[in-house]
Amino acid sequence: MSRHYTLTISCPDRAGIIAAVSGFIAQHGGFIVEASYHTEHEEQRFFMRQEVRADSLPFDADEFCRRFAPLAAEFGMEWQLSDSAIKKRLVVLVSKQDHCLDDLLYRWRSGELQVDIPCVISNHEDLRSFVEWHGIPFIHVDMSDKSAAFERIAALFEEHRGDTMVLARFMQILPPSLCQRFPRRIINIHHSFLPSFVGAKPYHQAHQRGVKLIGATCHFVTDELDAGPIIEQDTVRIDHGDTVDDLVRYGRDIEKTVLSRGLRYHIEDRVLVCGNKTIVFK
Amino acid sequence: MSRHYTLTISCPDRAGIIAAVSGFIAQHGGFIVEASYHTEHEEQRFFMRQEVRADSLPFDADEFCRRFAPLAAEFGMEWQLSDSAIKKRLVVLVSKQDHCLDDLLYRWRSGELQVDIPCVISNHEDLRSFVEWHGIPFIHVDMSDKSAAFERIAALFEEHRGDTMVLARFMQILPPSLCQRFPRRIINIHHSFLPSFVGAKPYHQAHQRGVKLIGATCHFVTDELDAGPIIEQDTVRIDHGDTVDDLVRYGRDIEKTVLSRGLRYHIEDRVLVCGNKTIVFK
Amino acid sequence: MSRHYTLTISCPDRAGIIAAVSGFIAQHGGFIVEASYHTEHEEQRFFMRQEVRADSLPFDADEFCRRFAPLAAEFGMEWQLSDSAIKKRLVVLVSKQDHCLDDLLYRWRSGELQVDIPCVISNHEDLRSFVEWHGIPFIHVDMSDKSAAFERIAALFEEHRGDTMVLARFMQILPPSLCQRFPRRIINIHHSFLPSFVGAKPYHQAHQRGVKLIGATCHFVTDELDAGPIIEQDTVRIDHGDTVDDLVRYGRDIEKTVLSRGLRYHIEDRVLVCGNKTIVFK
Amino acid sequence: MSRHYTLTISCPDRAGIIAAVSGFIAQHGGFIVEASYHTEHEEQRFFMRQEVRADSLPFDADEFCRRFAPLAAEFGMEWQLSDSAIKKRLVVLVSKQDHCLDDLLYRWRSGELQVDIPCVISNHEDLRSFVEWHGIPFIHVDMSDKSAAFERIAALFEEHRGDTMVLARFMQILPPSLCQRFPRRIINIHHSFLPSFVGAKPYHQAHQRGVKLIGATCHFVTDELDAGPIIEQDTVRIDHGDTVDDLVRYGRDIEKTVLSRGLRYHIEDRVLVCGNKTIVFK
Repeated sequence: MSRHYTLTISCPDRAGIIAAVSGFIAQHGGFIVEASYHTEHEEQRFFMRQEVRADSLPFDADEFCRRFAPLAAEFGMEWQLSDSAIKKRLVVLVSKQDHCLDDLLYRWRSGELQVDIPCVISNHEDLRSFVEWHGIPFIHVDMSDKSAAFERIAALFEEHRGDTMVLARFMQILPPSLCQRFPRRIINIHHSFLPSFVGAKPYHQAHQRGVKLIGATCHFVTDELDAGPIIEQDTVRIDHGDTVDDLVRYGRDIEKTVLSRGLRYHIEDRVLVCGNKTIVFK
Repeated sequence: MSRHYTLTISCPDRAGIIAAVSGFIAQHGGFIVEASYHTEHEEQRFFMRQEVRADSLPFDADEFCRRFAPLAAEFGMEWQLSDSAIKKRLVVLVSKQDHCLDDLLYRWRSGELQVDIPCVISNHEDLRSFVEWHGIPFIHVDMSDKSAAFERIAALFEEHRGDTMVLARFMQILPPSLCQRFPRRIINIHHSFLPSFVGAKPYHQAHQRGVKLIGATCHFVTDELDAGPIIEQDTVRIDHGDTVDDLVRYGRDIEKTVLSRGLRYHIEDRVLVCGNKTIVFK
Repeated sequence: MSRHYTLTISCPDRAGIIAAVSGFIAQHGGFIVEASYHTEHEEQRFFMRQEVRADSLPFDADEFCRRFAPLAAEFGMEWQLSDSAIKKRLVVLVSKQDHCLDDLLYRWRSGELQVDIPCVISNHEDLRSFVEWHGIPFIHVDMSDKSAAFERIAALFEEHRGDTMVLARFMQILPPSLCQRFPRRIINIHHSFLPSFVGAKPYHQAHQRGVKLIGATCHFVTDELDAGPIIEQDTVRIDHGDTVDDLVRYGRDIEKTVLSRGLRYHIEDRVLVCGNKTIVFK
Repeated sequence: MSRHYTLTISCPDRAGIIAAVSGFIAQHGGFIVEASYHTEHEEQRFFMRQEVRADSLPFDADEFCRRFAPLAAEFGMEWQLSDSAIKKRLVVLVSKQDHCLDDLLYRWRSGELQVDIPCVISNHEDLRSFVEWHGIPFIHVDMSDKSAAFERIAALFEEHRGDTMVLARFMQILPPSLCQRFPRRIINIHHSFLPSFVGAKPYHQAHQRGVKLIGATCHFVTDELDAGPIIEQDTVRIDHGDTVDDLVRYGRDIEKTVLSRGLRYHIEDRVLVCGNKTIVFK
């Protein structure tokens, strides 16, 4: 994949936005590799994502931003430009269950997930050896004083210049203050098809209710538990013969699939947020 | 398909049940075509379904029942024997939306759904012509007096010797008394993936929440709204570009698929109930 | 859905196409409702689809075409503009199996499929009553002289000003001359997951091979049997217990689903062809 | 999961088999945990799998076999009894691609896959460190003399008392002699939805053909390339925007899922073979 810039925009909807933005890019010889648009009708708000080949432009990302700013101002845009040459930094939080971590680290070391992972943070020591085998620092945070622990996690996230905090089956509920401090930057995998089975032990809840499919949900964390904007979901069929243990086992596969897809979308700047919903430009 | 008897059993779990039942069948030369078992561990209850070729037995269904009764008593079985030569009778209730009705009548007239449909009941006149083209009586029930209307529906169901009442997008909530009068005999299709989005306008609720899949649920009707034992469910992927109207359109396909599957299982005596859950022997 | 024009374009790839086209539209105040792009890299060819709200433009479709022509010529575009107010005309060909026909006619009469169906043509009389109940002319074509029969079918298609000929389980192989006469205008549903199980009795072939999923394929008809550009496909799980009859039954559901999806894409001008492949802008 | 014996049987079909076998088990107080049956009608052959709780029987597996032998002989059964306390031994063959290996070793070290892995064999050195981190011997086999290399592989398999040889993306074609030497004991994952795209570069073939779904197939290896009995398959949706590299990426996920499911079925003695087809008792 050659280097490219990804421009994401949201602004009030009106005619001429696409023409203005693609005109700006064309005027500098920019070659658009991928382009996606969406209008959120209830909000009368327009969303847009364009990938431009870096080598087709006569200037770098900073100069792009300088030149684009007046146009953005004219349309009242919230926007950002990201450069594929600068990898996003994921700080991963785990507890004892390692299926999502294993999956993420495999995708990372195979080059499928183009990110940096400056550290893995855990409230347990169990996964140290596996993480360190990858050459990634493993940091244990003691949770006996929760308030201090979450302060430390926030500090570690900032110190390691994390872009996104990934809760890869981190079995602790983040305090609202932490959620509000990093809006749209904390991603969780919940082991149910939300909004069903919020909170603890969703597989037990699902077994109890006798549903015929179980699911998993990748979402941004907000200060309301399991209620943030949904990025990705999927389900898998079960039947009456499956025990809670079977659900947990099927669930592991669906959890890691959904998390890795949601993360990929996020890292590639495909996920925009509107209210409590996401636009995902696949 | 040659004629067969289907024996369904539920009883307290213990060793030797399969041997006793299959021994009884073998002793009379019975040829087992299909057999399924399940133990509900929390309840310590055993469930079983066996199909036997009718022409392999030296007696008819009545005689089978007479001879089997002592064995059933010994094991404390709840059981029934159904004869594939005697078609189940479905009374279908609809309002104005006809996608589920169209699907059911197609499967019926093509011979895929081996049932009798003595009548279709509706609180509107819209679907009369389509139903009558099939040679099926169409009965309009006026809902202005709800209590009387549901009395009439119950009476029509009994008068037409219905085995199962199918709510094929019937947009009226049945009173608890009616639900209790025909336990495990009323089947509904709900247009969400229960337990999410109970009640009215589930597609609006789903759109509002920003889920990435929508679903449908076929379930037995009990006196608690949308909370009866689930027979079948499925989901379909949507995305941010889909309006509520799109969800409704995708939903129609998933609703009719889920209802027809659930009904088929029920008609073939594949659905057993344990508490608020179903065992579905596919 | 308000009236809109859909502009589809294919041309050699280069920088500035999106800007030129969206600039043209913006210059006349056009409001873009939906836009999709794709580059076929091996062919260095660019594909594009844009929906514009008709009431946002100061002229009609003809004038749009006149004004757009110079730009199209400059970029070497193959292009067309279609008007949502002018319904496409589908001529449907069937034999005896009616599941796809039933599905199409249901979607047509419920308003989901926005087309005109000027006639249904069949080599059997079986489906006359059902088609005529819809108020659609049913035309029987005798196949004893195949060459004359296909001449007649082509003549009927033209006489009824058909845009697309739909082979909804039409069990006759079209002669190459007919296929070549209406390129990209004849759509077939094949009852296998192509390229597996080309030709006759695909469900028998699938059963024989012991596959664990079966499928269906909606494709443009070319003069090579079952080898034209694929528009849509899907699969469904089966298992060792399923007989050929069961596969046929599951297959009916997947066939009608795949055909109706493929047709919808085609009718909405979402399907562009590049060599033997399709671009489907969903 | 408590210890259990799994009895698998295939024999000519007739009345009374289930009764005879379950009678034998019941007579010794055996508690049946799970039971499945299937008749392959064309072959008039019956297949059966029963799990019995070990602690419900008054004797061990050897004694079970001794006592069961006369009954088995009477019905002309091919049969085997396996003991959940004795883990199957998998010898895994890999080349450079490690997604399937990573997945298998994760499931192994997390306890989900209840097997022993006495060694991993490869024609490359790349994966040594990862395998050895797990404490599993890694054996490099030089392929410059193919005939000698496959002799060595066969010898290693026997020396390590392998039950099943797993080709986890092993990019060498096994010679017919090796396939015949270990019938139904070599399992491959092929990166297409067979029978489509046999042989080399199936993702390139799929991309070339323009299919809308790609798949993977887990099958027993026979002396005809990619033509052995299919154990498990699945598919995933792609679209026109996906490059061959994208197909490879999606493919990795579907390959490892399908291989792990197929292996699980095989290890739990759920896979019986009839001609070139499998019965999979899930």
